[in-house]
Amino acid sequence: MDVFEAINKRYSHKREFKDEPVPRETLKKIVQAGIQAPSGCNEQTTDFVIVDDPALIREIAAITERPFIKTAGAIIACIVNQRPVYRGLSFEVEDCSAAVENMLLSITALGYAAVWIEGNILVEGKPEKLNSLLKVPAPKYVRVLLPLGIPPEQGTQKEKKPFARRAWFNTYDG
Amino acid sequence: MDVFEAINKRYSHKREFKDEPVPRETLKKIVQAGIQAPSGCNEQTTDFVIVDDPALIREIAAITERPFIKTAGAIIACIVNQRPVYRGLSFEVEDCSAAVENMLLSITALGYAAVWIEGNILVEGKPEKLNSLLKVPAPKYVRVLLPLGIPPEQGTQKEKKPFARRAWFNTYDG
Repeated sequence: MDVFEAINKRYSHKREFKDEPVPRETLKKIVQAGIQAPSGCNEQTTDFVIVDDPALIREIAAITERPFIKTAGAIIACIVNQRPVYRGLSFEVEDCSAAVENMLLSITALGYAAVWIEGNILVEGKPEKLNSLLKVPAPKYVRVLLPLGIPPEQGTQKEKKPFARRAWFNTYDG
Repeated sequence: MDVFEAINKRYSHKREFKDEPVPRETLKKIVQAGIQAPSGCNEQTTDFVIVDDPALIREIAAITERPFIKTAGAIIACIVNQRPVYRGLSFEVEDCSAAVENMLLSITALGYAAVWIEGNILVEGKPEKLNSLLKVPAPKYVRVLLPLGIPPEQGTQKEKKPFARRAWFNTYDG
């Protein structure tokens, strides 16, 4: 699928998925796209746990308290590693986000749908629960979950503000 | 260009560009791809200043102390707005990074090259200088610069660690 088509078609799927597994070769292709994302100083701080064990998927759904996640064919958990790489600055959020976006576009291109779950799992002791479940050693932690699967019907991207309200030439005008 | 081809071909161009302007229609298409990136709670916190005034490009190059930036056909400045949108959490870095990745893939697909500049402009009083130059009102600030142009020759993506060292099924094993 063309890059611009994927960018246009990507949307946040927050409903049930069809009851179909995602083949491991497909999951590897999606995560390889995440691996190839840029990272600060090419430090590649993001790791990935690809969850396709149905029991683990159900446990993750319970932690997130979002029942639709139970129906995902797989969940990609993105693990971050906060570590200064340039003048005391750490870019683990940037690294993870770029990897997530590569994966969301790849998921779209391959006919699947997903949703970026982040704030939900950063509160209320959920980081500890997810670290324990997926055996992630602290201080590394699961920053983002991408539940994915085949959507029952194609959703659409939420409306965005028009170009003129978000971009200008040469001088900020917001 | 196919999504996976763009993900494979994207690379960080840290050298001079050909002396060719980037048409405004092309710049708008690239920034529109950034606008359509996902954002926390669809709050769309990232704005964009598209710099194609040669005098401003030279001034930005001087601030970054990276002389090759003088040769860019344009620079896309990504403006962030730190603002809690979910349980006290702010996602302006995620929002900006997803937009940057959409734009880097679009830049690649259109035959241009660019580099993600971030740490360089977050230190040593540079945020204040860039805000002043582009008339960005604080507390908003320029988080990322994307100098872009036609590369004299096609570069290649830096090597990434193999899949087996970054990804595992169902249990973290790093």
